[in-house]
Amino acid sequence: MSYPTRVKLVDVGPRDGLQNEKQPVPAAVKIELVHRLQAAGLKEIEVTSFVSPKWVPQMGDNAEVMAGIERRADVRYSVLTPNMKGFEAAVLSRPDEIVVFGAASEAFSQKNINCSIAESIERFAPVVAAARAAGIHVRGAMSCTVGCPYEGEIAPERVAYLAGLMKGIGVQHIGVADTIGVGTPIKVRKAIEATLQHFDLNDVSGHFHDTYGQALSNTLAALAMGVWQFDTSVAGLGGCPYAKGATGNVATEDVVYMLHGMGIDTGIDLDQLIDAGQFISDHLGRPTQSRVAKAILAKRASSAACEAV
Amino acid sequence: MSYPTRVKLVDVGPRDGLQNEKQPVPAAVKIELVHRLQAAGLKEIEVTSFVSPKWVPQMGDNAEVMAGIERRADVRYSVLTPNMKGFEAAVLSRPDEIVVFGAASEAFSQKNINCSIAESIERFAPVVAAARAAGIHVRGAMSCTVGCPYEGEIAPERVAYLAGLMKGIGVQHIGVADTIGVGTPIKVRKAIEATLQHFDLNDVSGHFHDTYGQALSNTLAALAMGVWQFDTSVAGLGGCPYAKGATGNVATEDVVYMLHGMGIDTGIDLDQLIDAGQFISDHLGRPTQSRVAKAILAKRASSAACEAV
Repeated sequence: MSYPTRVKLVDVGPRDGLQNEKQPVPAAVKIELVHRLQAAGLKEIEVTSFVSPKWVPQMGDNAEVMAGIERRADVRYSVLTPNMKGFEAAVLSRPDEIVVFGAASEAFSQKNINCSIAESIERFAPVVAAARAAGIHVRGAMSCTVGCPYEGEIAPERVAYLAGLMKGIGVQHIGVADTIGVGTPIKVRKAIEATLQHFDLNDVSGHFHDTYGQALSNTLAALAMGVWQFDTSVAGLGGCPYAKGATGNVATEDVVYMLHGMGIDTGIDLDQLIDAGQFISDHLGRPTQSRVAKAILAKRASSAACEAV
Repeated sequence: MSYPTRVKLVDVGPRDGLQNEKQPVPAAVKIELVHRLQAAGLKEIEVTSFVSPKWVPQMGDNAEVMAGIERRADVRYSVLTPNMKGFEAAVLSRPDEIVVFGAASEAFSQKNINCSIAESIERFAPVVAAARAAGIHVRGAMSCTVGCPYEGEIAPERVAYLAGLMKGIGVQHIGVADTIGVGTPIKVRKAIEATLQHFDLNDVSGHFHDTYGQALSNTLAALAMGVWQFDTSVAGLGGCPYAKGATGNVATEDVVYMLHGMGIDTGIDLDQLIDAGQFISDHLGRPTQSRVAKAILAKRASSAACEAV
């Protein structure tokens, strides 16, 4: 078995991580978080979404956040655009990439985006076409590819079906998400195999939640297949409000620690990343969800205590 | 790659998990925990240790605990015996297995058991011989096989050296421990490969701490090598007091969830196991460290709330 020598991580913290926060997070804090993530070496950041502020009030400052970022040429800034209205607003902010998201589970599609899978694809088609025409990269995200809170286990055929629909409308890159974190290595491998019926290995990424602590072993299983792109969230910010017990995205820090320990290059400075996680955790008034950050912060505190003696 | 179809877990919670608790845990609670673990399907339980109560006061009730267990013929009850004095006391409790433990790191050996690696082996030799003569199975545990809090990274050659010494004195089964949880899949694989120079695959187990959240991916890496025996600790009890930031053994629940999700048989009932973890966590007045238990308990609570409406 040979693992990739280099991995690209997409930090989804500013968008997926913060979207469900009840207290408004100021645009300036979001911008600072993006700046800290890019300073730590992230090359792609999911910044915000262009959805109705009625549905996701936390992302109502999308244009302000996008305008406030000091962009780097080597970083890709992506935004979610569920429909044409969102895309038309998003394009004014010059994103490098837009993301459309569908579910492999029919029930989840209905509950999450209020339409069937087929209807969601119809809705995305003009968005994807417009983005491609404007030279904007298009990523698709498939939720519930191993399990659904309403339907239970999801068959790989359902994943292949959705991946095929996404490919059909011109989506260039596809994310395989375990939205509720119930996946284990063999199930995740099957979901990825199903996706590979329609997408090239270089156009597939993994997005694993750590609700049941399985995200790193699922990442390892994907790495063993050659997958080299993953979504992660600094400090483990976020989760899915529609999924019972879905307490969080896998922490970027935890994935980076594993990859570096395996000799896999990410271009990320773990210490700076931990500082970025600490910055947003302090703002939210919550401890980080990253085990690596907790362990390293405890070590730093004990070293500081020793030096103080 | 083919994974084992069946895995044996050794729950080390009653010993490794509880040994560092500051408040005394009554013998009756420990006995009840052992009963609950065997009812959940565990076939081997590390019950207690026969060390000086001056060093480990929490295990001072070792004989009482061993005497109080209603033993099952298909369960192996093991105890730690660091020296002849401990063994002589232990043998009166009729353990099925004794455990001797050495470190792959010289500095850790000195700090943890106050002697060099070579001296520790000299000390274990008569214990192993006496146990073998009495028909008691002998397991060796190697700590710090990937990293040491004092020496940093540990070379696989050091693991091979210790494994060879253990084999030389008659140890029948060997555990490869990542005592401070710093291991990642490739490093763990190398530590196991080094061990396999001296022990048969069927006589090797993994013991991974989850301090950096890496235990399940390390378990997966070991499974991919054919390792089918692992130490785990219900509710993630325990850790190592000599290892900075070493906050815990991997939770049995989390490993069982992954294995069952992969179609690997453990003989364990996850719901009963979660109840056993809840029992001891309630007693200790702390939340479980198991992510799976947290997620499933949250689900149970929300179902109960729905039923109550």
